Amino acid sequence: MIKQLISNIKNKKSFLCVGLDTDIKKIPKFLLKYDDPVFEFNKRIIDKTKNYCIAYKPNFAFYEDSMDSLIKTVDYIKNENILVIADSKRGDIYNTFKLYAKSCFNTIGCEAMTVSPYMGTDVFSKVSKDYSNNFFIVLALTSNSGSNDFQLLKIGDKYLYEIVLDKFGKIENSKNQIMFVVGATNDIQKLKRIRKIIPENFLLIPGVGHQGGSLSDVCSELLNDNCGIIVSSSRSIIYCSDGTDFDLQAGEAAKNIQKEMESILISRNII
Amino acid sequence: MIKQLISNIKNKKSFLCVGLDTDIKKIPKFLLKYDDPVFEFNKRIIDKTKNYCIAYKPNFAFYEDSMDSLIKTVDYIKNENILVIADSKRGDIYNTFKLYAKSCFNTIGCEAMTVSPYMGTDVFSKVSKDYSNNFFIVLALTSNSGSNDFQLLKIGDKYLYEIVLDKFGKIENSKNQIMFVVGATNDIQKLKRIRKIIPENFLLIPGVGHQGGSLSDVCSELLNDNCGIIVSSSRSIIYCSDGTDFDLQAGEAAKNIQKEMESILISRNII
Repeated sequence: MIKQLISNIKNKKSFLCVGLDTDIKKIPKFLLKYDDPVFEFNKRIIDKTKNYCIAYKPNFAFYEDSMDSLIKTVDYIKNENILVIADSKRGDIYNTFKLYAKSCFNTIGCEAMTVSPYMGTDVFSKVSKDYSNNFFIVLALTSNSGSNDFQLLKIGDKYLYEIVLDKFGKIENSKNQIMFVVGATNDIQKLKRIRKIIPENFLLIPGVGHQGGSLSDVCSELLNDNCGIIVSSSRSIIYCSDGTDFDLQAGEAAKNIQKEMESILISRNII
Repeated sequence: MIKQLISNIKNKKSFLCVGLDTDIKKIPKFLLKYDDPVFEFNKRIIDKTKNYCIAYKPNFAFYEDSMDSLIKTVDYIKNENILVIADSKRGDIYNTFKLYAKSCFNTIGCEAMTVSPYMGTDVFSKVSKDYSNNFFIVLALTSNSGSNDFQLLKIGDKYLYEIVLDKFGKIENSKNQIMFVVGATNDIQKLKRIRKIIPENFLLIPGVGHQGGSLSDVCSELLNDNCGIIVSSSRSIIYCSDGTDFDLQAGEAAKNIQKEMESILISRNII
């Protein structure tokens, strides 16, 4: 799976993930006449952005009342050889977590899921063997104000999120199955230390664009020889326009980011 | 809401929560002939245990493929004036978390939900105002082996989980809306320190029974003047028997725990 991801990044010259945080209140009004407006919106976004991205990330909270739209969306992406990341931030003991994994990977058909680290690594040491072709993306350093409360506590000379990186970085097969969420809006000093702890694991990076994170800062500190990062953008792509051209505008926005990513990948000799 | 909970505890002489971790593979075979075996199982368990407990706790992972059974179950409990706790361990930024809260409280009809603390207190300071009649039950000290990885890290002279208790204990209206998950299988020294940090917040305590935690240890360290604890038991009640008498056996098991709780409440002058 990790090889296929790296190969997709190189072929498409992109490490863009489009976040499908689809809110029926925010989509163009003309779509409401369709049977399933959320799926209709996603389908059109996918059609126009799929050449410029290597992952889609539906946030499950947006589909609590429209699970069918989510399943149809994931199924639609299946034909495109693009990673589908369930942004669900689940976490529980092994016997219970297995049920979330089964639902997410087997029933809904995603290939990766975001998870919370608080209950420890034991669950993921086990479940990553059960699902050896899937990715678990562990929250490490988020960019909301509350990240100060616990993630930035100091244990000796390390932040808590650095211990999260270190411990999850050491579980068996980690570099092939474990990724980490690191918000783009964090300062450069923090980003710099991350690659020393986990040189090889992929990072999922939200916060570029709408939230103010800088793509060039993120890339200068976090890119590795295999790219090693997936940069996620949602609102600044999918809600560019609320007219009938919303999908074309989304495609243009994705293309612009892809072009920027392409020149970064070239300048770093990754492609 | 907290007043109603305390009043229910005193009236029913019980602080028992029955965990509805209903697995279609574990329920008695004769129920499979019904249209909705999971709901049929829950309904019968509820009928026979409702006089002995003050809360039910469906773990959402068990209902990923049977959301209708969950909604029917919660609706069935509604008539009984018993707290329904969504054991979902959700967590996200405010705008996203609101969608989980809406689904859990408004659509499904639960009154409380378990949440992960890793992303910080900011989300809950806000969302607890939006849902001022609901409870948020924060993971603090769990009893799986992975709890060592992060929860028991020392920051100065405090464990991480103690800082979680302290910070969530300080958010506005905390004692009325924030509870904490504390596993019963933790040692007495740890339990002892918890009530010093949060004397008034309620605790949700799994791990008594099947997992080996002691009800008397838990009570001696954690009971407060309003009781202040909800002890949760699932497998050792709902899976007592796989015969047609499964519900009667569950009722007997719940009644036995309630009797033990009653004598503890009397001995501590709480009732």
